[in-house]
Amino acid sequence: LNRRLDGLGTTIFAEMSALAAATGAINLGQGFPDTDGPEEVREAAVRALRDGRGNQYPPGPGVPELRTAVAEHQARRYGLSFDPDTEVLVTAGATEAIAATLLALLEPGDEVIAFEPYYDSYAACIAMAGATRVPLTLRAPDFRPDLDALRDAVTPRTRLLLLNSPHNPTGMVLNPGELAAIAELAVERDLLVVTDEVYEHLVFEGEHTPLISLPGMRERTVAISSAGKTFSFTGWKVGWVTGAAPLVAAVRTAKQYLTFVSSGPFQYAVAEALRLPDGFFTGFREDLRAKRDLLAGGLADAGLTVFRPQGTYFITTDIAALGEKDGLAFCRSLPERCGVVAVPNAVFYDDPEAGRTQVRFAFCKREEILREAAARLSGLG
Amino acid sequence: LNRRLDGLGTTIFAEMSALAAATGAINLGQGFPDTDGPEEVREAAVRALRDGRGNQYPPGPGVPELRTAVAEHQARRYGLSFDPDTEVLVTAGATEAIAATLLALLEPGDEVIAFEPYYDSYAACIAMAGATRVPLTLRAPDFRPDLDALRDAVTPRTRLLLLNSPHNPTGMVLNPGELAAIAELAVERDLLVVTDEVYEHLVFEGEHTPLISLPGMRERTVAISSAGKTFSFTGWKVGWVTGAAPLVAAVRTAKQYLTFVSSGPFQYAVAEALRLPDGFFTGFREDLRAKRDLLAGGLADAGLTVFRPQGTYFITTDIAALGEKDGLAFCRSLPERCGVVAVPNAVFYDDPEAGRTQVRFAFCKREEILREAAARLSGLG
Ligand SMILES: CSCCC(=O)C(=O)O
Ligand SMILES: CSCCC(=O)C(=O)O
Repeated sequence: LNRRLDGLGTTIFAEMSALAAATGAINLGQGFPDTDGPEEVREAAVRALRDGRGNQYPPGPGVPELRTAVAEHQARRYGLSFDPDTEVLVTAGATEAIAATLLALLEPGDEVIAFEPYYDSYAACIAMAGATRVPLTLRAPDFRPDLDALRDAVTPRTRLLLLNSPHNPTGMVLNPGELAAIAELAVERDLLVVTDEVYEHLVFEGEHTPLISLPGMRERTVAISSAGKTFSFTGWKVGWVTGAAPLVAAVRTAKQYLTFVSSGPFQYAVAEALRLPDGFFTGFREDLRAKRDLLAGGLADAGLTVFRPQGTYFITTDIAALGEKDGLAFCRSLPERCGVVAVPNAVFYDDPEAGRTQVRFAFCKREEILREAAARLSGLG
Repeated sequence: LNRRLDGLGTTIFAEMSALAAATGAINLGQGFPDTDGPEEVREAAVRALRDGRGNQYPPGPGVPELRTAVAEHQARRYGLSFDPDTEVLVTAGATEAIAATLLALLEPGDEVIAFEPYYDSYAACIAMAGATRVPLTLRAPDFRPDLDALRDAVTPRTRLLLLNSPHNPTGMVLNPGELAAIAELAVERDLLVVTDEVYEHLVFEGEHTPLISLPGMRERTVAISSAGKTFSFTGWKVGWVTGAAPLVAAVRTAKQYLTFVSSGPFQYAVAEALRLPDGFFTGFREDLRAKRDLLAGGLADAGLTVFRPQGTYFITTDIAALGEKDGLAFCRSLPERCGVVAVPNAVFYDDPEAGRTQVRFAFCKREEILREAAARLSGLG
C-alpha cells in the first residue's frame, strides 16, 4: 500500500457498519436513512432504465438533463447562475467530487486548510494528491471556526481552503459573519476554496448560504453537493460540482480518469428530483428537525452532553459525563452494551486528544427507531 | 490544473462522442453497444430498486451477493477460487478499479510498464500516482508484445506491469507462450501485475486465460473486469477487482476515498447477470464475431488496411493506403466527409509516430448500422 495511505486502511463507517450488521444493533453510525426517498423519484429511475436512458455511457460531464436541473436548482434556491455546459459536472457522489477536485487542483507540497474534525476522505484525498493538510480545529461546545487561527494558518504554500458547511460531524453551520471573513481572506491571499455542501437542505437554525455567492468567490470556488442526502437515495451516488468553467474543466479532467462516468439511469431520476416543489425540501427539513430534537432529548436523558447541531443529520455528543474516557472504545463496545452503533469523532481529528470523548449519532432514522435507540441508551448512565 | 495532468485535458472518447452527437454521424468511436443488454438483467435492476436493495450505501467492498457471484463466475469459467469476503472488491466500473489499484500500489518515482497503445486512463492514473510509465510498443500488423523488449524494459525501479488482454484498441489477445513468459519475468523480478480483462468474454481466436492462473501469479496479480462490456449496460458502471487479500485490501483503501461505494441497485442485477447460462456468453461472442467480420469486410472494401482483432469489439485499421497521413485529422473530418465517427489510435501512444495512421472502429452496433457505416465509408477511396 502506498505510504501516503498509511493509517487510512478502513474508514470508520465500514468498521461500524460491519459491527452493526454483525450484532444487529441499531445503526446510528453511518449517515444513511432507513427509509428510501420519494416513490416518484424511484419510479423516474425505473422509467429511465426501461426507456434505455443512461444504460450506456452517459456523456462525461453528465447528462444534459441533470446538468440543467442542477443549474436551475441553484438559480431557484440561491439566485446563482451556472452554465450547465461548462460550469456543472456530474460525479459519482460527493466523494468522487472531492477526490477529483483535490487531485486536479493540488500539487505535491501544497497546503490545504480544512476544518477538523473532518470527513475522512478529505485527509485521504489530500494525501493522494501529495499535499499536506493543515487542520483548523473546531472546538466544543459550539464548534465555531476560530477566524484568527484561520488567518494565521495561511502560509505562502497554502493553496486551498476545504470547507464543509453544514459541517459533518459537528452540525456547525457557518454564519454570515464567518462566511464574509473567509471570503475576504480567500481573496486577500488568493486561495482556491472547495466547499462540501451535501447537507445544504438540512439547516435547522439560520440558513445555508453558499460561499460561492460572496464577493470574489465566484471565480475561485468549487462547490460540491449530491443527491444522496437530500433525496434519501445514498446508494445511487449522484453528486455534482459547480463553479467557474476553468475550475470545473480541471476537475473534469481528473474525474474522467477516476470513474469516467457513473450512475447512468439515476442521473435522469435525480434531474426530476431536483425539480420537486419547495414543499418537498421544507418537509424533509422539518421531518429531520423533529428527529433531531427527539434524539437530542434521548441522548441528554441518557446522560450524554449533547451539542445540538444547527444542520446535517448528525448529533455530536460528549461521553465524559458518563465517566467514559475513550470514544473509540466506547463505540466498539456500545453494540454489546446496549444494541446501538455510533461513530467516534476522534478518528476525524489529527489531534487524537481533541475529540477523544466525542461520539456522533445519526438521526436520519424512523421515529420509532430513534425512540428505541434512546430507550436502549438510557441504560448507560 | 495539476501539472501531472497536463495534456490529459479531454479524453478522445469525449471529443469524438461530442462530434457524433453534433453531426448525427454513426458513432463507431467509443466502445458502447447501441442495444441494451438482456431484459431480464434490466428487470433485475428494477426489482432491486423497488425492493429497496442498494438504494442506500451498499457495503464498501460491494454487496455480498455480487462478490459471491463474481467468485462463482471465476470458478465456473476459469477454475479460479477467490474468497468473496477478502479477495473480491466491487468498483465503479473498470476505470475506478484501475485508478484505485494504481493509486494504492504505486509510490512516486515507481516505473510502470504498459502495452502501448493504451486506454488513456492508464497514463492519467500512473501520472496521478506520481509514477512513470514505460511503454512497450505493440506494432502492426499483429501487435504481439516483444518479449525481449519487455525483459529489457524492467529496471530496479519497475514496480508493476499493467497489462490488458484482450487488448484495446488493437484486439491482440495474449497467447499461452506470451502469458508464460510474462509470468516468469514477473516472478523473477518480483513485480506486481495488474490485468485489465474487461473484454474477457470477447475472444474470437484462441481463449482468454487469466494471467493470475499461471504459476507464481496468484499472490502478485490484481485482475480487473466489469459488467459493462459483457452485459451491454456500460452506463451502470459495475466493475470488480479480484486478487490476493493483501492486494485487494490495499485497493479497497484507495477505492473507498475515490467513490466510497457505487451503483447500489445495479450490483444486485449484475449478480444475477453473472449467473446467466453459458449459452448467453457464447451467443454474445458469436454475435460479435459476425459483426467483426461484417465491419472488417466493409473496411477492407473501403480501402483501409484491416488488422483483424482476436478479441474486443474494436478493429484497428491503417489509413495510409487511402493516402491519408494523420489519423487524428482524418477522424476529425470523417463525420463531415462520410457520416462516421472513429477514434485515432495515435492518442494512445507516447510516441506520436507509432500510431499516426491507425484508426479504430467499434463494431458493437446493430448489423444494419454496420452495413450503413461500411456503405458510407466505401465513398472514401
Ligand atoms: C460515505 S459516508 C459519507 C458521510 C456519511 O454518511 C457519514 O459521515 O456518515
Ligand atoms: C470509458 S471508454 C472505455 C473504453 C472504451 O469503451 C473505448 O475504448 O472506447
